[in-house]
Amino acid sequence: MSSTVPANSVGLVTPSVARFGEPLPLECGKTLPSYELIYETYGTLNSTRNNAILICHALSSDHHAAGYHSTNDKKPGWWETCIGPGKPIDTNKFFVVCSNNIGGCKGSTGPMSKNPQTGQPYGPDFPLVTVKDWVNTQARLANQLKIDCWQAVIGGSLGGMQAMQWSIDFPDRLKHCFIIAAAPHLSAQNIAFNEVARRAIITDPEFHEGHYYKYDTEPARGLMLARMLGHITYLSDDAMLAKFGRELKTSDYQFSYDVEFEVESYLRYQGEKFIGQFDANTYLLMTRALDYFDPAKNYNNDLSAALSMTKARFHIIAFTSDWRFSPARSREIVKALLDNNRDTSYAEITANHGHDAFLMDIPHYMDVFRANMNQLDLADHTADQSAETTHAPT
Amino acid sequence: MSSTVPANSVGLVTPSVARFGEPLPLECGKTLPSYELIYETYGTLNSTRNNAILICHALSSDHHAAGYHSTNDKKPGWWETCIGPGKPIDTNKFFVVCSNNIGGCKGSTGPMSKNPQTGQPYGPDFPLVTVKDWVNTQARLANQLKIDCWQAVIGGSLGGMQAMQWSIDFPDRLKHCFIIAAAPHLSAQNIAFNEVARRAIITDPEFHEGHYYKYDTEPARGLMLARMLGHITYLSDDAMLAKFGRELKTSDYQFSYDVEFEVESYLRYQGEKFIGQFDANTYLLMTRALDYFDPAKNYNNDLSAALSMTKARFHIIAFTSDWRFSPARSREIVKALLDNNRDTSYAEITANHGHDAFLMDIPHYMDVFRANMNQLDLADHTADQSAETTHAPT
Repeated sequence: MSSTVPANSVGLVTPSVARFGEPLPLECGKTLPSYELIYETYGTLNSTRNNAILICHALSSDHHAAGYHSTNDKKPGWWETCIGPGKPIDTNKFFVVCSNNIGGCKGSTGPMSKNPQTGQPYGPDFPLVTVKDWVNTQARLANQLKIDCWQAVIGGSLGGMQAMQWSIDFPDRLKHCFIIAAAPHLSAQNIAFNEVARRAIITDPEFHEGHYYKYDTEPARGLMLARMLGHITYLSDDAMLAKFGRELKTSDYQFSYDVEFEVESYLRYQGEKFIGQFDANTYLLMTRALDYFDPAKNYNNDLSAALSMTKARFHIIAFTSDWRFSPARSREIVKALLDNNRDTSYAEITANHGHDAFLMDIPHYMDVFRANMNQLDLADHTADQSAETTHAPT
Repeated sequence: MSSTVPANSVGLVTPSVARFGEPLPLECGKTLPSYELIYETYGTLNSTRNNAILICHALSSDHHAAGYHSTNDKKPGWWETCIGPGKPIDTNKFFVVCSNNIGGCKGSTGPMSKNPQTGQPYGPDFPLVTVKDWVNTQARLANQLKIDCWQAVIGGSLGGMQAMQWSIDFPDRLKHCFIIAAAPHLSAQNIAFNEVARRAIITDPEFHEGHYYKYDTEPARGLMLARMLGHITYLSDDAMLAKFGRELKTSDYQFSYDVEFEVESYLRYQGEKFIGQFDANTYLLMTRALDYFDPAKNYNNDLSAALSMTKARFHIIAFTSDWRFSPARSREIVKALLDNNRDTSYAEITANHGHDAFLMDIPHYMDVFRANMNQLDLADHTADQSAETTHAPT
């Protein structure tokens, strides 16, 4: 292995693709006739198949959660800090699975995929999928992998929402549920930011009502603005102060609209980097899935009722400076779980990194994450295997 | 007077225009050869000319601070809640002046005005003006109106920054300084939001590098996005929750990118309303003036030093839920004033309206504002008139 790959990494990884020929009914009322999921795995599934962990990804990430695709890769997977040998999600112990959500643009079926009915990319005709739909596709992937029950389903941000949905929809198919830097639903302000991002994309003249592939173009300006705005909400005011303050690119004001302040330079870089790396239709779809997520909605807006059928042990983690999904939002989840007497741990990590903290190597966070992961008891399951087989895949 | 004009309004008002032929040197190094200021006045200047109050406006407002232009007007001036007979800024007692800032688009010289050198609109060639430049133009207006010394200079948000600059640049020309919902400079996050708004405008294909007037168009999409984003920062998360929550336009999700949530409807309405009402070049310029405001910059980033030459009595007001310019930012100003032993009052108003609170009829706010305004002592000035005449206009 090249020297670029650190020893505590899962190392070189290759994605797999799972094909699903059975039609998938969606929450929106439409049906996806067939689909593919691209996924990666790290570690080894044990003989009792009880050490599997599902990682759910957030808005703009994908199935590449850890390791490297080649020794030339400059960056590892998006959650390299947490997944690997000896890390909180310890690949010496667990078999870790992470798939790209449908509707995505990194290899699973989505707007860029060919619509079998037309032979052209789906584009805007790809149905609006939801967190619940994603969980269904992940359950089918578990069936293919012959994983009856996840030892844990884990996610941050939109990924945490998928973990929560798992606990509601498949209570017998996960032992532990990790909901990190998430919320039981988006606030009006959260939706408002998503709406501005979507309007930026949709009103871009290069959007062509979502059919931009046909014109060999993309709504690059809109996507750039959406990403810039996203980054503001990922960082706290304090983190921005610490990172950029009012630092200037040059020695004094230039009196122009070019980059004057370091923070402008950072945002433009992030926005421009996103162009060509991410699909605008997917960005629309992912933000809408966020807006729609609201498990309490079908329970008269009673989150406690929504969580009443859950069986998992819950681990909720929030970050003090996260203003996208603040600790107060996580506490709503904790309260609803305690209403149901669920086994629940809650940690509020002091961190000034904002929402992005969930991706970062923060000692208190890593310690708490590791301590919670140590609660996962593979031995119990083995001893109780005869009972366990009653939890057949649905 | 029509029944549409309430009795406690200043009633029907007509703007005036002041012309300034003397070139105005600007902070950016350029010079404006001549300019006009449109302004309104309410109340009557007394014989000792010591009851004049200057109102400074914020980002998107103008000289029309109170009253109605016609009996058909649906809305009065932007600060009708605070200006009028018997109101905190009592027009029975004070002579109130409010001008549109240069660089504006409501009648004062700005990007839409004719550049005397070309005969065409200035457009992007209009110089980037600063808070300090605005204060200079307002001082010249005071000279024309033969107002040696304002009884008070008052502003909220960007207007509060102008009031602060007045206290620094013309310490002998104001008795009281009201800095409401403001900050001593923008944070990195504040600048970041401005930058996204500017990129939205500048990257709009209809922007034509600022020369859109020539093409009989405007960067409407960009301006709309900028305004939508602005509105998110004007409202608190709590205010949005109270106002919209997750209320839907229809009975259930429609699974589309059309308006689903009430908050989306509100933002689109605000964004679309702004188009045609405000000039994009002015929006760029106003946000840049905000970015640049930083009186401590020339004092080694020491705000106390920047305020050391001030003589006014200060009244600082902040609102608990304002996350654009939070109370913590106002306290920075208060602290720097106290370092200089300045006569300073500070009120933190409990209000869940966010930054917009400074425009609203909030009883505690109105009471504090009125109480502070009652400190303005016109009699003192009259008694001291011989001394006062030494403060000649500059």
